Amino acid sequence: MPKLQFWYEFASTYSYPAAMRIGEAAARRGVEVDWRPFLLGPIFADQGWRDSPFNIYPAKGAYMWRDLERICEAYGLPFRRPALFPQRSVSAARIALVLSGDERAAFSRRVYAAQFGEGANIAGAAVLGRLLSESGADPAGASAGAESDEVRAALREATDEARRLGIFGAPSFLTPGGELFWGDDRLDQALDWTASGR
Amino acid sequence: MPKLQFWYEFASTYSYPAAMRIGEAAARRGVEVDWRPFLLGPIFADQGWRDSPFNIYPAKGAYMWRDLERICEAYGLPFRRPALFPQRSVSAARIALVLSGDERAAFSRRVYAAQFGEGANIAGAAVLGRLLSESGADPAGASAGAESDEVRAALREATDEARRLGIFGAPSFLTPGGELFWGDDRLDQALDWTASGR
Repeated sequence: MPKLQFWYEFASTYSYPAAMRIGEAAARRGVEVDWRPFLLGPIFADQGWRDSPFNIYPAKGAYMWRDLERICEAYGLPFRRPALFPQRSVSAARIALVLSGDERAAFSRRVYAAQFGEGANIAGAAVLGRLLSESGADPAGASAGAESDEVRAALREATDEARRLGIFGAPSFLTPGGELFWGDDRLDQALDWTASGR
Repeated sequence: MPKLQFWYEFASTYSYPAAMRIGEAAARRGVEVDWRPFLLGPIFADQGWRDSPFNIYPAKGAYMWRDLERICEAYGLPFRRPALFPQRSVSAARIALVLSGDERAAFSRRVYAAQFGEGANIAGAAVLGRLLSESGADPAGASAGAESDEVRAALREATDEARRLGIFGAPSFLTPGGELFWGDDRLDQALDWTASGR
């Protein structure tokens, strides 16, 4: 099966609907999904941003929250704006890297649903342990492995790879042929492109 | 008929496919289009940008040009990247304000097609005169009126109105109920929203 790379950042709002939709949308087309967590912070820092552009540019931020609410309504996804944005996403990203396959996907969806569907803060060890359990993974094993030097290095390497691929935002999608698509609103196009073998 | 405001900036790349598609897409739904030219430059300057963000952030710019090419291919629109970007759009915007109704729409489409379908520079009086003729308007009348104090003030007022509406990019769409949509990829959603009377 052709495989689409799905690059996501746990603090990214538009990654939420993409993460919730991509599994079923890919399966319908016979496309496999490679879940690739990374950090946008270092890439934003390259551009001189020390905060989310949605906070730096208030008109853009106000628009994004309303747009996200409309998108969630259209897809039947729960939406609750978290009190804190953006959230510290590094621990969640490291845990996701410890997991693989369906476990990584299930945990990632659970983190997004908690953050943007329930308004939770996903930064801490306790909430992440709970979300691991709720997604069917082993909390103790994943949490312990997540703070190893190896996993820390793997997340830095994933972020460097994203930068090399020209990724500047999340969600981003990379087809086997090297076409890059950015944004939840490009998910279907990226899957169609992958399925068609272009 | 319900009326959708279409806010566009002649230097904006993604406004090109929106301008070429909106007439037919709106007519199919029984929606009227209010063509609202404005300038993004002063709004970008509010955010500290003295150039297009597609030039300031090279990864975003490289992505945008490829994305625009794909969009044009999907819609069957000619695409040719102009040598200069962004282009000085103030004269075209003033001329558009002198025109009204179908003449404004036809001239605006012709300017976009010349710039992004043929790679032309649309800054100067000669090319704008030609584009006026080609769109069926009277070149002499429109060009003369465009540099009046009244029209200059009207363009400043349009840009101030865009800013007050929370517009931060182009194309943007405003429904009768006050819903703002940003981006060519939101055109159909904005039209559906307008047609449904929400």
